[in-house]
Amino acid sequence: MATEVGFIGLGIMGQPMALNLIKAGYKLTVYNRTASKAEPLKTAGATVASTPAEAVKNAEFVVSIVSDTNAMEEVVTGKGGALETLRPGAVWIDSSTISPVFSVKLSRLMGEKGAKLLDAPVTGSKHGAEKGELLFMIGGEDDALKKAKPLIDVMGKKFIHLGGNGKGLSCKVSMNAILATQLLIFCEAILLAKKAGVDPQQFLDVMQSSFARSHLVDFKAPFIFKGDFTPFFPLGLMHKDLSLALENAYANNVPMPTTAAVKEVFGAGKAQGKGDLDIGAVITVLEDLTGEKVRVSNPSS
Amino acid sequence: MATEVGFIGLGIMGQPMALNLIKAGYKLTVYNRTASKAEPLKTAGATVASTPAEAVKNAEFVVSIVSDTNAMEEVVTGKGGALETLRPGAVWIDSSTISPVFSVKLSRLMGEKGAKLLDAPVTGSKHGAEKGELLFMIGGEDDALKKAKPLIDVMGKKFIHLGGNGKGLSCKVSMNAILATQLLIFCEAILLAKKAGVDPQQFLDVMQSSFARSHLVDFKAPFIFKGDFTPFFPLGLMHKDLSLALENAYANNVPMPTTAAVKEVFGAGKAQGKGDLDIGAVITVLEDLTGEKVRVSNPSS
Amino acid sequence: MATEVGFIGLGIMGQPMALNLIKAGYKLTVYNRTASKAEPLKTAGATVASTPAEAVKNAEFVVSIVSDTNAMEEVVTGKGGALETLRPGAVWIDSSTISPVFSVKLSRLMGEKGAKLLDAPVTGSKHGAEKGELLFMIGGEDDALKKAKPLIDVMGKKFIHLGGNGKGLSCKVSMNAILATQLLIFCEAILLAKKAGVDPQQFLDVMQSSFARSHLVDFKAPFIFKGDFTPFFPLGLMHKDLSLALENAYANNVPMPTTAAVKEVFGAGKAQGKGDLDIGAVITVLEDLTGEKVRVSNPSS
Amino acid sequence: MATEVGFIGLGIMGQPMALNLIKAGYKLTVYNRTASKAEPLKTAGATVASTPAEAVKNAEFVVSIVSDTNAMEEVVTGKGGALETLRPGAVWIDSSTISPVFSVKLSRLMGEKGAKLLDAPVTGSKHGAEKGELLFMIGGEDDALKKAKPLIDVMGKKFIHLGGNGKGLSCKVSMNAILATQLLIFCEAILLAKKAGVDPQQFLDVMQSSFARSHLVDFKAPFIFKGDFTPFFPLGLMHKDLSLALENAYANNVPMPTTAAVKEVFGAGKAQGKGDLDIGAVITVLEDLTGEKVRVSNPSS
Repeated sequence: MATEVGFIGLGIMGQPMALNLIKAGYKLTVYNRTASKAEPLKTAGATVASTPAEAVKNAEFVVSIVSDTNAMEEVVTGKGGALETLRPGAVWIDSSTISPVFSVKLSRLMGEKGAKLLDAPVTGSKHGAEKGELLFMIGGEDDALKKAKPLIDVMGKKFIHLGGNGKGLSCKVSMNAILATQLLIFCEAILLAKKAGVDPQQFLDVMQSSFARSHLVDFKAPFIFKGDFTPFFPLGLMHKDLSLALENAYANNVPMPTTAAVKEVFGAGKAQGKGDLDIGAVITVLEDLTGEKVRVSNPSS
Repeated sequence: MATEVGFIGLGIMGQPMALNLIKAGYKLTVYNRTASKAEPLKTAGATVASTPAEAVKNAEFVVSIVSDTNAMEEVVTGKGGALETLRPGAVWIDSSTISPVFSVKLSRLMGEKGAKLLDAPVTGSKHGAEKGELLFMIGGEDDALKKAKPLIDVMGKKFIHLGGNGKGLSCKVSMNAILATQLLIFCEAILLAKKAGVDPQQFLDVMQSSFARSHLVDFKAPFIFKGDFTPFFPLGLMHKDLSLALENAYANNVPMPTTAAVKEVFGAGKAQGKGDLDIGAVITVLEDLTGEKVRVSNPSS
Repeated sequence: MATEVGFIGLGIMGQPMALNLIKAGYKLTVYNRTASKAEPLKTAGATVASTPAEAVKNAEFVVSIVSDTNAMEEVVTGKGGALETLRPGAVWIDSSTISPVFSVKLSRLMGEKGAKLLDAPVTGSKHGAEKGELLFMIGGEDDALKKAKPLIDVMGKKFIHLGGNGKGLSCKVSMNAILATQLLIFCEAILLAKKAGVDPQQFLDVMQSSFARSHLVDFKAPFIFKGDFTPFFPLGLMHKDLSLALENAYANNVPMPTTAAVKEVFGAGKAQGKGDLDIGAVITVLEDLTGEKVRVSNPSS
Repeated sequence: MATEVGFIGLGIMGQPMALNLIKAGYKLTVYNRTASKAEPLKTAGATVASTPAEAVKNAEFVVSIVSDTNAMEEVVTGKGGALETLRPGAVWIDSSTISPVFSVKLSRLMGEKGAKLLDAPVTGSKHGAEKGELLFMIGGEDDALKKAKPLIDVMGKKFIHLGGNGKGLSCKVSMNAILATQLLIFCEAILLAKKAGVDPQQFLDVMQSSFARSHLVDFKAPFIFKGDFTPFFPLGLMHKDLSLALENAYANNVPMPTTAAVKEVFGAGKAQGKGDLDIGAVITVLEDLTGEKVRVSNPSS
């Protein structure tokens, strides 16, 4: 008989992750705040629940990937929340990028119900989710991870167990601080080069032939050169993740002056209404100020 | 008969570059502010000059790589400076990382003597210089570059012609803003992860398996993990380069909030007396504040 | 018969505020996490409670001033928390500097019990609290404020009603961002002047004769010149307040690049173990880096 | 017979300063790059020179106030520059805000001609210049200052002698870092308060009743509330002064993280084309991002 899985959060990442679990033979009961997003899953054979409580009540495993800490709090402890019905013995794989401190708190609440939480945020965007090639950063107990491994193997190609509860998220928010900063410094630097008369494609060629090479820039530069900001990773979510990194830094007494500066530029992009565009749109925050655009007619890939 | 080359500046990079030119058959007259550094070159067959003017007076080509804008100003326009004797028709390859704006001014002064300047800063550290594998970013006129190409081919493995005078330097200072920032954000992020309980080696493994991968970090992380700050690229010079990037940004009206924040942290390192250590020592600025060190006993390479 | 007041939080500010209420004839039941701090109040005639619930159960008014959002959450919603016994009709004056967003949430929870919350943070340090000369920034409903006015008049010399719940705190966290920044920029500027050879007292004289004059600096400079960092306003609390300002900026989509940079320097001070020193100790974060101290043997006041 | 004074630079500040000297009986020969600006001085009795050399050739004193370091370099060392004709014994009062390091260099060049330089930047805007109420920050030798005192007394109401050459400027650039930062943090804080629902006039009232009171804000807030950015002190010049402060910090090894962040926001304003507006226009850089304006219909003064 198929293993029952409650799946909560059907956004850009959640949709393909849930579909991959269905394809692998799991029996899913799904929940999403905006119900319409559950349609493709219903078509694929999932049961649709109207509350988190309903989604998890028979579940041996729960997988969640929601937008932020508040959403996760609501899902777990709100009215109709998962804590009302969560089964003893259940293992909850939370792939949301939320506050590490809050996740530790959740793991205690779930522990009181006899369930175990793994914080299991992922790297890799929409594509990685579709292909089941995500990389999971995992915090939580060994035995819970052992049980959850088959599901993780379906959704991802690799996982790293980083320690107890919250360690996966602590790794993740630091990682995203790196990504956001690598992207923004590329934008600052190439815009300066362009305004000083250097061709952007040549600048990129030098950069990628040198120690400054960045895999993120390999991927993002062609989109930036075309001004194509179709969201793989929305700017607003990156702003949230930068906030989480600084919140974690506050909790751990680590000064992060670069991260702090970077966050405000992403925040400026969100304030300009670009929160739903791809993170690459952060270049437009600077472009709007300088009246110069970094565009290349035929970017070489 | 061997082509005469004036070579000015015999520091970490200049020494091996000059030696490679001698090996390739050029006749070098060398000058260095601190005369003792000229000894190895003398041994290798170079003539040692006591002023820049003397070093360049018979030279068809001049190669220079000095520490900063002031040093270059002194070399060219100071008493006993190169402008006093520079030959019409000479081509000057300046690999110093100095102010792009000032380099353009120098090209005009040299032009009045009938000589031509190429701004030709390099990427690649000491190793690259030794192996003749530098990457040259070149600004200046086509015909000057054509003449200089054989020398550049001896010292480097690749060059990119980025446009008129100053464009090589504009590319370089932007590039170094990227390098400094990639390094510092890695330091901030891994220190946070460590204080939050994540193992640094595991953190690095996740990072280098993901889009956050940075070639600079590939190279620097093992040294940082060992606390080995033997200078490949001194922190003080990077601080200077960040200043140059911001000076260029000022001249070109480009806001660079990330670069500005990063520069102050490198500046803090220099203020602490770490200017002669490797750029990797920037992590100690943060470590000193947090009382936590990012060290790994047996870093995997 | 004397009005019953529950008073929670007996730190630097809470102690004198509570004493002033007792002197004015109110009947206080006090609670503090660290029980020993309640002794002086007991001596002055207060009843000492062992939980927040006990402190507020007969109270017509509650006054609280605790260290941060988590502490306030514990006081109100924790086990033995005030919500268990809070009387309908009670008015709660919370002078803690906590998250404006969280305070609005608390006002809803209290509203469900028929009680009303005023967020009522104060400016003015220990001295102001002792003399009853605090300035209250108040958010909440008119009728609640009308009832609470007599108590506020005892503790302060002025109050400003800024609007509905959370507005007092939104004003306060912005205000403290200004204070922290005025202080830090003074430190940066005077340290630069000193290292460049300018006498600090003369620098201060010029500053305070000009448009740059700051009342905060009037007060703090003599202590900084003496290196006296006895806490009036602890650096760690200011770091918390800067975090709250940025949290509020996140919630309201306002980029605050200056505040973000300032917060990291206060954070560095806290990471160095200076969280319990006065905010003036932020200068030592910079001094430690530069090896230069801004000290004046006989500061003129 | 009237004392001969060469006066160079007839901008917002220079015009009224020169007029005050004429009124006091000095015989002026004036020079300005844009000749038309000399008209009002000609009308008032000044001789108009066509080069700096011509302006200073008979001068016992020279007063200059030009826009930046490059302009001053051109005036002194350029073709037709003042060094060509400067008389031995002349005292040069330079009120330009330029690089302290460069000013020291100029003092050496003038010294070789037997002349003496005072760096004598001023605080106080256009109004102060008109009323002869400027505050002079002076670097240079005692005897030169003694000779120059009568002229300074005409143009200003107070001066402070801060030490040898460059000290006046070192004081000034630090001072302007304070002014720029006080202004920007006020803008960040009040914009946050406004977006969070606090009335700007009330916010200002709280601020100016508290330790956060700033004299600069007293003066600027009414203009900001009206959106009136008529230049008293142009934003572009403040951006330049922030650059000078950071250049001085670089030379003196002082990290200035706040100043660095502030400079980039002023730089963003200049990049947006607001360099000729008053510094108060820096608020619009933030307003443009947030879609919220801090305006008050009837600001109380």
